[in-house]
Amino acid sequence: MTTDVEALLADLRQFVAERDWSQFHDPKNLTMLLASEVGELVAEYRWVAGDVADAHSRDAGAARERIIDEVGDVGIALLLLCDRTGIDLGDAIAAKLAKNRVRYPADKARGKPERP
Amino acid sequence: MTTDVEALLADLRQFVAERDWSQFHDPKNLTMLLASEVGELVAEYRWVAGDVADAHSRDAGAARERIIDEVGDVGIALLLLCDRTGIDLGDAIAAKLAKNRVRYPADKARGKPERP
Amino acid sequence: MTTDVEALLADLRQFVAERDWSQFHDPKNLTMLLASEVGELVAEYRWVAGDVADAHSRDAGAARERIIDEVGDVGIALLLLCDRTGIDLGDAIAAKLAKNRVRYPADKARGKPERP
Amino acid sequence: MTTDVEALLADLRQFVAERDWSQFHDPKNLTMLLASEVGELVAEYRWVAGDVADAHSRDAGAARERIIDEVGDVGIALLLLCDRTGIDLGDAIAAKLAKNRVRYPADKARGKPERP
Repeated sequence: MTTDVEALLADLRQFVAERDWSQFHDPKNLTMLLASEVGELVAEYRWVAGDVADAHSRDAGAARERIIDEVGDVGIALLLLCDRTGIDLGDAIAAKLAKNRVRYPADKARGKPERP
Repeated sequence: MTTDVEALLADLRQFVAERDWSQFHDPKNLTMLLASEVGELVAEYRWVAGDVADAHSRDAGAARERIIDEVGDVGIALLLLCDRTGIDLGDAIAAKLAKNRVRYPADKARGKPERP
Repeated sequence: MTTDVEALLADLRQFVAERDWSQFHDPKNLTMLLASEVGELVAEYRWVAGDVADAHSRDAGAARERIIDEVGDVGIALLLLCDRTGIDLGDAIAAKLAKNRVRYPADKARGKPERP
Repeated sequence: MTTDVEALLADLRQFVAERDWSQFHDPKNLTMLLASEVGELVAEYRWVAGDVADAHSRDAGAARERIIDEVGDVGIALLLLCDRTGIDLGDAIAAKLAKNRVRYPADKARGKPERP
């Protein structure tokens, strides 16, 4: 990722401040924003067979443009939530990955998917 | 965000490779992972009133720990999806923010929430 | 509910058959349809404060029309999934309600929300 | 569906009343309940290939039991939302199906999935 995360956060804060949208952005509402944006991303794949999902994602064209758009929306919602709650996204990811290393030991989890 | 995103991606790739999980991680499946993890994050706030959602998120304790955990899961799913599809998350966020600046001009959108 | 569920299912089956959409409707895809439709329903409430959510839902007007529309979409997705998997929705609800009666005894759960 | 929907609604209302949970069940919160329950249903299929999703759903065993359980949770959340907002679920489904018949004419939509 070439973009600087702190610079993105600064841009997002300015965008929200200019529109006086902070009043709508309590963490509860932001998880709802996140859920609705993820729903739109899911919609991009709901009729796409798994074995062509990679090609569907990478073929230049309208689908890829929409997918990038929806990924952007999801990322914005997630960063807004982290910023509002004072959660460092990178730290949260690193901490969860460390937990997952323990929960799914490589020798036992190999080739078997994560449990639901 | 102090953590380096490229370093996180490298760790995630190694985690997946050690478990031979790449076979499960086509983009369709990863959007489902994302949706299920976001569902768990939403669950943390579903009974929390909006006007105490900030305090609920920030009070040291079990709720904050779980929220950070769920944010980590969501972040992992999103990074896995971006990595698999060759989407630069930072670029996608910056591009969508630029579109939103046009779609919601500050003087017209001020104090009025984004349309559903 | 005055509408007959079996009649609804028959109408849905005919709708799908006329469009040859059964090929897209494996249960995995239908859970994705459900997730994306629920995302649209969530979008209707994401900026609405909890204490006006009842009024927002009941006021005649565009919001209520959209909410009914999204509820219809969610209901269609859920019925399609049940029909495809041979799950009787009413039985599934009744069975889960019976489990919840045990899991959340009235005297202990009173006034305390379900755990996430 | 052999179960009577009005009887289910009456049981749900009693269940909620006995626990004094109506205070948590404004429509906003119930859409969050719905989103989190759908997330759990999605989790049941996220690593299941589309071409074995039917068998996965129908094979007697732990997966089917969990899927029925999650369908029950989703159905409960949807009925609670409909009851709270005064929306007749059957009518909403029938109305949306009628709109979809117009939006997706059989001769044009045949074999082509619904747009995202």
